[in-house]
Amino acid sequence: MSEDEKPPWQTLSSRMVYNNPWIGVREDAVVRPDGERGIYGVVHYKNTAIGILPIENDDIYLVGQYRYPLGIYSWEIPEGGCLEGDDFLKAAKRELEEETGLRAGNWAKLGEAHLSNSVSDELAVWFLATGLIQGKQQLEGTEKLIVRRLPFKEALRMALNGEITDAISLMAIFQYHLLNSK
Amino acid sequence: MSEDEKPPWQTLSSRMVYNNPWIGVREDAVVRPDGERGIYGVVHYKNTAIGILPIENDDIYLVGQYRYPLGIYSWEIPEGGCLEGDDFLKAAKRELEEETGLRAGNWAKLGEAHLSNSVSDELAVWFLATGLIQGKQQLEGTEKLIVRRLPFKEALRMALNGEITDAISLMAIFQYHLLNSK
Repeated sequence: MSEDEKPPWQTLSSRMVYNNPWIGVREDAVVRPDGERGIYGVVHYKNTAIGILPIENDDIYLVGQYRYPLGIYSWEIPEGGCLEGDDFLKAAKRELEEETGLRAGNWAKLGEAHLSNSVSDELAVWFLATGLIQGKQQLEGTEKLIVRRLPFKEALRMALNGEITDAISLMAIFQYHLLNSK
Repeated sequence: MSEDEKPPWQTLSSRMVYNNPWIGVREDAVVRPDGERGIYGVVHYKNTAIGILPIENDDIYLVGQYRYPLGIYSWEIPEGGCLEGDDFLKAAKRELEEETGLRAGNWAKLGEAHLSNSVSDELAVWFLATGLIQGKQQLEGTEKLIVRRLPFKEALRMALNGEITDAISLMAIFQYHLLNSK
């Protein structure tokens, strides 16, 4: 670690201000990079966000669902949470099957990202799933989804024109196209 | 709006559980899609995240900084916050100049995304900035940054191999490459 990469923040104290089964929010008293005292509110995610890009020939499966925090309907790749300590790939297989009924013969990790690194520690990991077999959708009580199979190039168009706004979906769709158009 | 796109969640009550200058956290008592009672913790972001892709010939400018919520050093495109009601482009110009000292002759909106739509309402918007002129970096007290100019194809490599993990940077870099390699 170079001198420049050393933490320029100092944590003086830390208190939990909110906790539920999915997130914990803490507020730290800090010394900022300029030496001034301040606070830092950090949102800890108890789940890693898992995305699955299910591709069959030149088609992709998207799911449509209402996103409560935004109050909008959103078309996305299948996504779900992986609890701390659980295996990402196992969670990906479970979420794909729950949300779409699909099982995949082939899995490959495509990428990962920190979704909002100035406020939260949320990590997202996404996988490519191919060799798909259709089974039965098994939604959780918090889910109401529509599954749609469409040409990948149509999903790419939706990602480029703002019809898809979910960050994990955008990263996965852009990256898959990039890796397959070389 | 089709029947399927109607909100499947019902909000019974709402209480603020945490508030600071950047985020507000509320917990709603809800009826879930399956009719069961539950809670929903929502993180409201008071800023829109703004990203800037500064491109000069075939080079890009990245900034390196320590990200407190993750405890990691991160290489990213220049980013900053735009307060509610402020103009995204104006914020982009301000943040680019503050973080890198650069001014751009040409600006174009590239895309936008919801970064974590199961928990937060955070929106990110990113711009392409070209026709760059170097001025003087003017950091805020919460910032300690290194600026690096490098070939765009090197940044793309970093985005693909996991050296860049910031979601806004990944979306902007992938999308820019995709639009310019057609």
